[in-house]
Amino acid sequence: MKRVLVTGASGFIGRDTVPALFERGYEVHTLGRSTEFVEGITAHAGDLMDSRQTSATLAKVRPSHLLHLAWYAEHGKFWNSTENYRWVGASLSLLDAFHRAGGRRAVLAGSGAEYDWSDGRCDEALTPLAPATVYGTCKNATRLLFDAWRGSTGISGAWGRVFHLYGPRESPERLVASVIRALLRDEDAPCTHGRQRRDLLHVSDVAGAFAALLDSPVEGSVNIGAGVETSLAEVAQRIADLIGRPARLKLGARPADPDDPPRLVPVTDRLMKEVGWRPRYDLDQGLRQTIDWWRSQVHPGKADS
Amino acid sequence: MKRVLVTGASGFIGRDTVPALFERGYEVHTLGRSTEFVEGITAHAGDLMDSRQTSATLAKVRPSHLLHLAWYAEHGKFWNSTENYRWVGASLSLLDAFHRAGGRRAVLAGSGAEYDWSDGRCDEALTPLAPATVYGTCKNATRLLFDAWRGSTGISGAWGRVFHLYGPRESPERLVASVIRALLRDEDAPCTHGRQRRDLLHVSDVAGAFAALLDSPVEGSVNIGAGVETSLAEVAQRIADLIGRPARLKLGARPADPDDPPRLVPVTDRLMKEVGWRPRYDLDQGLRQTIDWWRSQVHPGKADS
Repeated sequence: MKRVLVTGASGFIGRDTVPALFERGYEVHTLGRSTEFVEGITAHAGDLMDSRQTSATLAKVRPSHLLHLAWYAEHGKFWNSTENYRWVGASLSLLDAFHRAGGRRAVLAGSGAEYDWSDGRCDEALTPLAPATVYGTCKNATRLLFDAWRGSTGISGAWGRVFHLYGPRESPERLVASVIRALLRDEDAPCTHGRQRRDLLHVSDVAGAFAALLDSPVEGSVNIGAGVETSLAEVAQRIADLIGRPARLKLGARPADPDDPPRLVPVTDRLMKEVGWRPRYDLDQGLRQTIDWWRSQVHPGKADS
Repeated sequence: MKRVLVTGASGFIGRDTVPALFERGYEVHTLGRSTEFVEGITAHAGDLMDSRQTSATLAKVRPSHLLHLAWYAEHGKFWNSTENYRWVGASLSLLDAFHRAGGRRAVLAGSGAEYDWSDGRCDEALTPLAPATVYGTCKNATRLLFDAWRGSTGISGAWGRVFHLYGPRESPERLVASVIRALLRDEDAPCTHGRQRRDLLHVSDVAGAFAALLDSPVEGSVNIGAGVETSLAEVAQRIADLIGRPARLKLGARPADPDDPPRLVPVTDRLMKEVGWRPRYDLDQGLRQTIDWWRSQVHPGKADS
């Protein structure tokens, strides 16, 4: 029997992992402060900062699998918040509890922010790990500890490095969401030059990749991406075309962040070949689905006011 | 006013830091499970694994300085015990509490085990950090987090990397202690070939170096060593000569650990030049003092039985 405990299950990625895990035959338990009702899962209320509570929950649930996605993620603030340090400790407590509860396989969410961004094209085996942010440093340190912990405990595990993603329920300040929302309201969408090259993956594909990784025997760090490189200008342009308001898109109207790397894409060979996973959405389908979702929101402008 | 909170104050190094801190004018508080009475200090009982208790103690003491030496250190076991992971979390909780209590400068104990040992001569600025043990991995991850945390909080701090040390109260299984004890009992002292090259520092000098580092404005990683390289055979030989039983020393009688690096010494330029510290003992004086201490123990053989 495959019983997985998911943390961060009510988050942007976590929410979409639940159906992906059901599809793969997992009994799904969640642990977190929010316990909104989702058909078919067993939700356990708990604060991951409380290691005793975490330990008690894991001892009760006895999951065979762990999918740890929870982390501090407040848009804009998460990059350099001191909250990141607390999540390293919480993650270690969770791993310890999972070990003591007899767990067999763990997958944790890492980040493209662990890499030295001057490299541009991030390869798990070759690119130096030299994070420039507190978030990246804390993810990288957690990964170093997780790698050693797998050796110490004999527990199988993988570290899925998330790059760029978009989709329904994205923070409205983020690129794809902000362009869609402005254009749907027939407002200008001011952007930077958009020459930054990225690999964008629809959130339900990110969730599907995590479920596939959990269900595989692959060990160690695995980049999560579509394996397709595009410029942000092309992405914004495609949104504008799909909505039918290309004149409202103002590329170059905002200054680019000087720290924003010109190219930052994952090599996805491990994910595609070793895990054997493929995305379901291409960029066009993913953007259409996301635009439809924002359209379906009754008052898309109200969240800002 | 300089008020330091010391963790691990009853440990091998910690015990000798107290007089060194007094010498430098610190008001000394300790936090730990053991609260044996030491003249002039204020001891606070507490388990560093209990982050709420740590936080409450720091809020009460409000130390300007932190010297964090506590870690899992059971001889032989500490290298790969899963206890190491718990000390990463405990260290992060302690740093967080120190920050919230208004702390200004922190010094933490790192280790030569953080380095890639194939290098032989460990330089803070040049030698790759590639620990081969769980202990080294956990110290290295804590250091990465500590470095970022200093940037996040603006708190000044240094990371003192301990290499090889000896002195009174050393674990009786360790090289210097075991050779001294065997020879004082007029028993054979079986050793490996002893060609391993090391930098040995007397424990009271290690403690003095930590006090000097705390009292300095130096930031980042600093190797702690005597700056003198010697072979372990020379050390054992010197002990045998000082005790007057050279025939009892059996170099080559035990197989060397194949993982034991042939050369492992710290570059000590940062400590000597930037911190401006010098050891008080040379090897000869340090060994004499240590031999005298073991002699002063009423029944030096009884600890084994």
